[in-house]
Amino acid sequence: MIKNIIVGQSGGPTAVINSSIAGVYKKAKEMGVENVYGMVYGIEGFLQENIINLDDYFKDEENFELLKRTPSAFLGSCRYKLPKVEDNQEVYEKIFDILEKHEIDALFYTGGNDSMDTIKMLSDYARDNNKPQLFMGVPKTIDNDLPITDHCPGYGSAIKYVATSIKEVIRDNASFGINKPTVLIIEIMGRHAGWLTCGAALAKGDDCEGVDAIYLPEEDFDMDEFKGRVKDLASKKKSVVIAISEGIHDSTGKFICELDNDNKAVDAFGHKQLSGSAVTLANIINRETGLKTRAIELSTLQRAATHIASLTDINEAMESGARAVEAVFNGETGKMATIIRKNSNPYEVSYEVYDIHDIANVEKKVPLEWIDSENKQMNQAYLEYARPLIMGELTPIFENGLPKHIVR
Amino acid sequence: MIKNIIVGQSGGPTAVINSSIAGVYKKAKEMGVENVYGMVYGIEGFLQENIINLDDYFKDEENFELLKRTPSAFLGSCRYKLPKVEDNQEVYEKIFDILEKHEIDALFYTGGNDSMDTIKMLSDYARDNNKPQLFMGVPKTIDNDLPITDHCPGYGSAIKYVATSIKEVIRDNASFGINKPTVLIIEIMGRHAGWLTCGAALAKGDDCEGVDAIYLPEEDFDMDEFKGRVKDLASKKKSVVIAISEGIHDSTGKFICELDNDNKAVDAFGHKQLSGSAVTLANIINRETGLKTRAIELSTLQRAATHIASLTDINEAMESGARAVEAVFNGETGKMATIIRKNSNPYEVSYEVYDIHDIANVEKKVPLEWIDSENKQMNQAYLEYARPLIMGELTPIFENGLPKHIVR
Repeated sequence: MIKNIIVGQSGGPTAVINSSIAGVYKKAKEMGVENVYGMVYGIEGFLQENIINLDDYFKDEENFELLKRTPSAFLGSCRYKLPKVEDNQEVYEKIFDILEKHEIDALFYTGGNDSMDTIKMLSDYARDNNKPQLFMGVPKTIDNDLPITDHCPGYGSAIKYVATSIKEVIRDNASFGINKPTVLIIEIMGRHAGWLTCGAALAKGDDCEGVDAIYLPEEDFDMDEFKGRVKDLASKKKSVVIAISEGIHDSTGKFICELDNDNKAVDAFGHKQLSGSAVTLANIINRETGLKTRAIELSTLQRAATHIASLTDINEAMESGARAVEAVFNGETGKMATIIRKNSNPYEVSYEVYDIHDIANVEKKVPLEWIDSENKQMNQAYLEYARPLIMGELTPIFENGLPKHIVR
Repeated sequence: MIKNIIVGQSGGPTAVINSSIAGVYKKAKEMGVENVYGMVYGIEGFLQENIINLDDYFKDEENFELLKRTPSAFLGSCRYKLPKVEDNQEVYEKIFDILEKHEIDALFYTGGNDSMDTIKMLSDYARDNNKPQLFMGVPKTIDNDLPITDHCPGYGSAIKYVATSIKEVIRDNASFGINKPTVLIIEIMGRHAGWLTCGAALAKGDDCEGVDAIYLPEEDFDMDEFKGRVKDLASKKKSVVIAISEGIHDSTGKFICELDNDNKAVDAFGHKQLSGSAVTLANIINRETGLKTRAIELSTLQRAATHIASLTDINEAMESGARAVEAVFNGETGKMATIIRKNSNPYEVSYEVYDIHDIANVEKKVPLEWIDSENKQMNQAYLEYARPLIMGELTPIFENGLPKHIVR
């Protein structure tokens, strides 16, 4: 019998991380759970017994609808990794004491690779110490780098924003067609895996020429190749637009954003100032070719843009949360909800749960066979994979001219 | 009798500059104009006789709807200032030759201060040389710095995007509430006038705490005051969010983005590298206080985000274009369409035309009495001015998961 449950949010926020808890909440209430608690600021807040009852907010249908349209972590998030059990028994005892005190039978945690480690540690501890509580992960990351699951809730909305914005700035960059070419370099999040940057490929279509090149951290960045490509492009067209991952690096593993900073003497305070990769490349191209350049860093905008979230993504986040709830009703623990793709066209998925030990701390990169290295573009296989994930919209509820959110 | 007309786009693009030409096209066809031509790449393209017939695109109703939802200049833009008539007779003769060749009776030009100079020069030339053609300006600038008109089409959509994005990143920045504070500095366009940055004030509401401070170029930037404010804010709250104009400057007139660069020795190539104002301030705060900082530059995203354009703005852009057409049918020339505010609540405007000589090259700044200097916020007067401008939305037409545009 599952009487009460608790859900927490962990790691970097996304546009749909709140839809994950919406899915957990809705399914749990359907299944007869008495109290659905939320931990404020993840497991770190939980350790301070910072807990709220989600009924106080989401019995109200309008609030529930707002939750799906509210960016970032409604409950607050953390970047806290549980310590090893050995020498840290007291942390675990405290967690289980709080669970028992509130008669919480199952704990759900939305997050990426690091956050899934929390589910692994807690379910292992419960198993080793004969604790009855159940632990379930709910995938969430714009980085899309969790293994086993076909893709991660959060990714579809992030690339929908990336592709929408890139379509818009490609047009902006092409406004002035008579004068010298302008080279626009767009930096997209992704330190180790280039999933988000791949999304730039979706901009291309009948109404958009798309980006001229895409550089991912999955391949070593060759500065000479890059300069040659930009010069060649600028000799042929007035607007050159290139998408790069923040984590692009040379063959020695050195990040491009560090490269140019070596050329800088330290400032008056004795500090080097790190610029982003796009700014670094824009500066290098400008000073070596004289071409006009501009750098745009999509920064946290790309993970917070719920106003243009993908409805498919929102629904999948909710379904993943719901599937995790079903799993604990089947007595399962130490697993994460996963999305299984059955077909891309028409798009069809199912939801399962999978052993957390194969998921926690593992990072899935973009398959090399999806990258057209020669043309610096994504192959058709990626487009077929990604296109369904950005389909559909959930129109914001506007108030005073702006999308309305819900606050804790 | 007005047989044919031509319309051109000039200066930096906006989210609704295409709605201006939509308004010109629609009204002109209603009034019986035979051909509505478009100049490709503004007056610069016109001088190369780069002209299209808008009927080829906009007789189709769906295309016309797409035009209103397409960012940047559909016709292409330019930054070309007509030379003085003295010593440059041939430029003017060429323009009027092309007008006569195509039997064009009136020329419409959408743009900001510099672009309105083109209308002034051409209408003055026509007057001085007994030419029958009429010249009319249609206001357009995200900068909102044209005089006489209450506000400029393009501004409402830009601040709707700014406020929407800021609401989203404020939440993102507040995700991690347990650890050290994070200072987020958001840089918004506006070199001389802070109109766009004021829009950050609209983010505040029942569901958003708003930005903690707003710095505009209308007031000198005091670095000590800034540092003190940030330190004070960071001692009281975990998330500090500050909006700044790109053009903030100290009391000597020196731009803040130049300030920090003085501290940098030149790089190996002998160049100084300019960073934006937000990056500069984020670096200074980080190294002097140890606080975690992040800088976001909204860059061209803020002028291209038609996907979240204001319907009020779109309609006003169209109405301004229509009013300019009506004016030439009344035989008027050398004027710009203006928006007259009759009331803010309920919001009510009318459209007029005004002598271009009082408009071209004049820059309207944010009234100092709208700035709460002590708290670095905008007064109620600004909020009452700006709120009506962001009301309403025109839902994009989505195709393959992305807003669809029209291409020339």
